[in-house]
Amino acid sequence: VRETFHGGLRQLGIDLTSMCHHAAGAIRAATEALLTADLAAAEQVLAEDAGLDALRDRCEEQAHVLLALQAPVARDLRTVLAAVYCADKIERMGDLAAHIADTARFAYPGHVVPESLTSVIADLGSVTSAMADRLGELVSDHGPAGHAELDHTDETVDELHAQILTAVTRASWEHGAAVAARLALVSRFYERFGDQAVSVAKRLDFIVTGEVQSPSQA
Amino acid sequence: VRETFHGGLRQLGIDLTSMCHHAAGAIRAATEALLTADLAAAEQVLAEDAGLDALRDRCEEQAHVLLALQAPVARDLRTVLAAVYCADKIERMGDLAAHIADTARFAYPGHVVPESLTSVIADLGSVTSAMADRLGELVSDHGPAGHAELDHTDETVDELHAQILTAVTRASWEHGAAVAARLALVSRFYERFGDQAVSVAKRLDFIVTGEVQSPSQA
Repeated sequence: VRETFHGGLRQLGIDLTSMCHHAAGAIRAATEALLTADLAAAEQVLAEDAGLDALRDRCEEQAHVLLALQAPVARDLRTVLAAVYCADKIERMGDLAAHIADTARFAYPGHVVPESLTSVIADLGSVTSAMADRLGELVSDHGPAGHAELDHTDETVDELHAQILTAVTRASWEHGAAVAARLALVSRFYERFGDQAVSVAKRLDFIVTGEVQSPSQA
Repeated sequence: VRETFHGGLRQLGIDLTSMCHHAAGAIRAATEALLTADLAAAEQVLAEDAGLDALRDRCEEQAHVLLALQAPVARDLRTVLAAVYCADKIERMGDLAAHIADTARFAYPGHVVPESLTSVIADLGSVTSAMADRLGELVSDHGPAGHAELDHTDETVDELHAQILTAVTRASWEHGAAVAARLALVSRFYERFGDQAVSVAKRLDFIVTGEVQSPSQA
């Protein structure tokens, strides 16, 4: 029975890792679509989001089966509950990437991001996709310091998000209210993507230590 | 043992109901603070958000204890897992109300909402707070049709959100880019609050029927 239980947990870990890399790829592709006004790329991100939903559902079902048949306790129970929590958050990361792709699609053939902010958006895309890829590694490695690490990286995301908000709300902004509103929302999607990655890393630490750690108020 | 289990479930239900009404009160007060530029009211919403976080933690701990000690299966297991899921979403509803209050605090003594949009924001506040209150009733009543009902109400939230986005992005918008960006974000907070309420209602239906129902793609 233990064999089966740990086989089930291993499958959960494989699915979660795969979800992380899927989310990383989605936000990388969505950023590219946004910056180059690439309609086909945007539509592909939107179409592929269903794959992440399906993996989330599979994780939940798998967790349900493990709980019902094996009645785990202590660390095993924490691990199964954490897997359900993490699958939900990573699926949400995919949704946020899809929102970014949808913004590109909606604006097509127009460009959403003015020249002066393309490097900030490119940085948001590369930092957040790196966070999701790192999360995939943390799921496989069971390292205990992932939360502190991703929380630190997330400060960069917050700074980039603040740069966008400052730019669109300063008096000298010259691209109009519609572009300002759209960019504020897009930037917020990246910021939330980073937040979810941090909350997943926090929960992974919790499996290892049994304690919720708070390096900051994330 | 069953006695204890159902006592534990009952306490979970009481806490979730309380969380719903707390979230309803928070978004109602945040809306009032936003519309009247009331700093003290905004700060109170922000201070009270910790209460919702504490209730969420208590629900999770309670669920953990029930799973570890009672090893429930079938509907009982679904119910405990649903309680964890719902507590997380309702806590998030509180965060969104706090974001709205924070927007009012940040703008103080200025007003965030131009005269022409106060009625739309007031409607967003009243519809979303009514959704959270209704969710509290649904948690107590265990009725099976909550998802369809809240999904329908949420269409009104989506329409109001679209009205705000249309207003701030139209060529005749006369309040500048900074106000447009801020309103787009605020309106998004209401929209997300409604989405979370729908996802909680969907999960409540799942407890009753054992099947995820999809009246729409919520």
